[in-house]
Amino acid sequence: MSGTGEEEVVEKFLDAASHGDEGQVTSLLSAVPSLLERTGPRGWTALMLAARNGHQNVVQTLLQHGCDRSLVNTVGQSASDVAKFWGHEHVAILLGDLDEEGDGVGCENYFGCEPLDRLSAKRTDSVWLEDRKEHPSSVFLLFSNLSPMLYQNQEGVQHLCRMGYEAVQDLVEKPDAALVFLGVERRSRTRSASEELPAWFAISSDEDGAALLGRCLHTKRKCSFASSAHRDLLNLSDEDAGILAPARALLAWHRRYAFCSTCGSATVSGEGGHKRSCRNQQCPSNKGVHNTCYPRTDPVVIMLVVHPDGNQCLLGRKSVFPARMFSCLAGFVEPGETLEAAARREVCEESGVRVGAVRYVSCQPWPMPSQLMIGCLCVAVTTDISVDRNEIEEARWFPRQQVMEALLGGGSRPGPAHSGLIIPPKQTIAHQLLRHWISTGANL
Amino acid sequence: MSGTGEEEVVEKFLDAASHGDEGQVTSLLSAVPSLLERTGPRGWTALMLAARNGHQNVVQTLLQHGCDRSLVNTVGQSASDVAKFWGHEHVAILLGDLDEEGDGVGCENYFGCEPLDRLSAKRTDSVWLEDRKEHPSSVFLLFSNLSPMLYQNQEGVQHLCRMGYEAVQDLVEKPDAALVFLGVERRSRTRSASEELPAWFAISSDEDGAALLGRCLHTKRKCSFASSAHRDLLNLSDEDAGILAPARALLAWHRRYAFCSTCGSATVSGEGGHKRSCRNQQCPSNKGVHNTCYPRTDPVVIMLVVHPDGNQCLLGRKSVFPARMFSCLAGFVEPGETLEAAARREVCEESGVRVGAVRYVSCQPWPMPSQLMIGCLCVAVTTDISVDRNEIEEARWFPRQQVMEALLGGGSRPGPAHSGLIIPPKQTIAHQLLRHWISTGANL
Repeated sequence: MSGTGEEEVVEKFLDAASHGDEGQVTSLLSAVPSLLERTGPRGWTALMLAARNGHQNVVQTLLQHGCDRSLVNTVGQSASDVAKFWGHEHVAILLGDLDEEGDGVGCENYFGCEPLDRLSAKRTDSVWLEDRKEHPSSVFLLFSNLSPMLYQNQEGVQHLCRMGYEAVQDLVEKPDAALVFLGVERRSRTRSASEELPAWFAISSDEDGAALLGRCLHTKRKCSFASSAHRDLLNLSDEDAGILAPARALLAWHRRYAFCSTCGSATVSGEGGHKRSCRNQQCPSNKGVHNTCYPRTDPVVIMLVVHPDGNQCLLGRKSVFPARMFSCLAGFVEPGETLEAAARREVCEESGVRVGAVRYVSCQPWPMPSQLMIGCLCVAVTTDISVDRNEIEEARWFPRQQVMEALLGGGSRPGPAHSGLIIPPKQTIAHQLLRHWISTGANL
Repeated sequence: MSGTGEEEVVEKFLDAASHGDEGQVTSLLSAVPSLLERTGPRGWTALMLAARNGHQNVVQTLLQHGCDRSLVNTVGQSASDVAKFWGHEHVAILLGDLDEEGDGVGCENYFGCEPLDRLSAKRTDSVWLEDRKEHPSSVFLLFSNLSPMLYQNQEGVQHLCRMGYEAVQDLVEKPDAALVFLGVERRSRTRSASEELPAWFAISSDEDGAALLGRCLHTKRKCSFASSAHRDLLNLSDEDAGILAPARALLAWHRRYAFCSTCGSATVSGEGGHKRSCRNQQCPSNKGVHNTCYPRTDPVVIMLVVHPDGNQCLLGRKSVFPARMFSCLAGFVEPGETLEAAARREVCEESGVRVGAVRYVSCQPWPMPSQLMIGCLCVAVTTDISVDRNEIEEARWFPRQQVMEALLGGGSRPGPAHSGLIIPPKQTIAHQLLRHWISTGANL
């Protein structure tokens, strides 16, 4: 094919995608498979053009041909961003970072993966649980003072240290061991249907850390316990982070809820570490279902507040933040409060800015100890800032351009010449809310 | 104007709204103000047509002229429904049941209003709190065994019984009284800036119910304590329901969390009833901020699962439900779990159906004792049903038409000849999710 002919074919192909001509798209692709990743003006691919105009059939065809959905155009938007911006929800779902397979593995935020099937029905099956605990395929994660044992691979990436039953048997068998059943691995396509699915457990010990580390010497790996939860726990793979989140939250709960809050008696762990029952049989918590017996999760709203002009956003900083770092405002949801009301109240309390529309974007488990961060985009209806110094040190409107630079600057790791805004790292939902705002709000 | 001339003007007006011609809309309205509520085919108003095509300026103009945003077309859709369906978010916000003023009073669901400003900064100001407690404008709600004192007005509507300080003084002054500061009334346009805003409190007493009722005899109203929380508490006004939600949730928390879960010591109420601190100074819960000291809210996901064909939805029934009643599936969010993952897990556990996309719709506080119901629309990727009998009795796909009939049938109050599906009453988010699905999903 000559140069001119090729350009013509690309144009024809992009045009067909843009207009939803599935037949044309298919026939051109059979003739020239490399068309799939070709771009038109401003880096738009066929997938983006089809997404822009809501042509679900063409999007499906392109995906079936193996089209790369992660490509971005010259302003950094993926096909999914384009679909969302133009309100084509079904196409956005098809294209999603969204988990359209329903297998639970996909996740939008760090700590949000679900690599394990929690298999909650098995928590009450003590015979099954005992059997799995001692099974050679079972995996144990060991925690000391709520810090997981980690090892670094040769590329410097942190991993959760996986141990077998033998290495922790004595700890597991202690009375009142803080042991939690996390679930089983998901059945993958490469695994035969008859194969047993490995069960995962987490266990916490008060033993001396050095002694605990000795348990994995034979693996020849350099193991350690995470020293600072908030930093060391943010450098895991998505899968390990998704396993850590429930494990750490549950172990923190066992530590904080060893006594019955209704009568003050000691409690005992049950249901694979997912329940604590009061030892006092007369306690009201033993009649019916009481939330005191179950793990606690604290809902938190975290807000990216957009200026009424659409081109600035409100960020605040606490005095403990590194220099020049600002983040989204956030706060706990109170009893009897909706997420929307909590978002409006927190923004107003902390910054004096009044918020109108509140839109849910995504959420992130945050297992320090057990928050669920619920991320929202909010539209301000006033702009004057009046900071509550008890909560934050400063709040400011930042223009879109400055946020974009901070995102491109790699978040929290500025170069030496850097002097602008610093935002939290990409593992935080604050970062992802900023990214979301930039990617869906730019002029398309 | 002759009949024919009038029809022509109506058509011209609707056409201008549909095409976003703000000038034309304005000039026609000045000439013929009654055009505002005129409808074209299938009951579509100018507002709906402008909303359909995303013309924010025309929508704004029509609203400024006092257009009724609650009108619905012949298939029951409001202008807001139309805007949401066609992905015009900004227009939907303008039209919203959404609370675009940011005053927190608007609400989508029962229990979701915020008639009071929580004024959380004042909770630590004990001097101010003491002063407000004894102030003649302050309002006290009295609870017995977590049931609020109610009175019925002449129209048979239930109200929360508002009492003055004098009527409850002895109860309030008891040591360890379960007293909660709820907030102050919001500053309204009719209230002068210097006027004191009445403060609201809730108090719970273990005294004999009949004796407690005696305290409001002088009001000549027939007062009573709600006998069954789940029924009597659903017949309040939106405002009273919005005040009851945090009040009941907080009082329930005081009752269940009188002891420190970390060390088993007794706790003491502080910060206007929004904190309980351990009396044991050595307890770790007294170092730093511990969630054990603060009220608990349990996030729950509640899902309307839509069939892949878009025309059926999945509902389940528990054995305790009235005959023929089905509702949305629901379950607690677990530690370390996203809302989306919780929705997928719960649907799969209860019905065997696998869910792909999950989209947040709205939420509802449910103060029995302290849930936050987070409502989602889900799209199924499989359709075979296999029920977990421990959780529900039956689950079934219901066609859109049958749901529509149940919605029109008034929910939980069927006539004697009724034989179809019954759904929960309109005060529940399950009902509102069904309504949302029907109103935004029909063929427009």
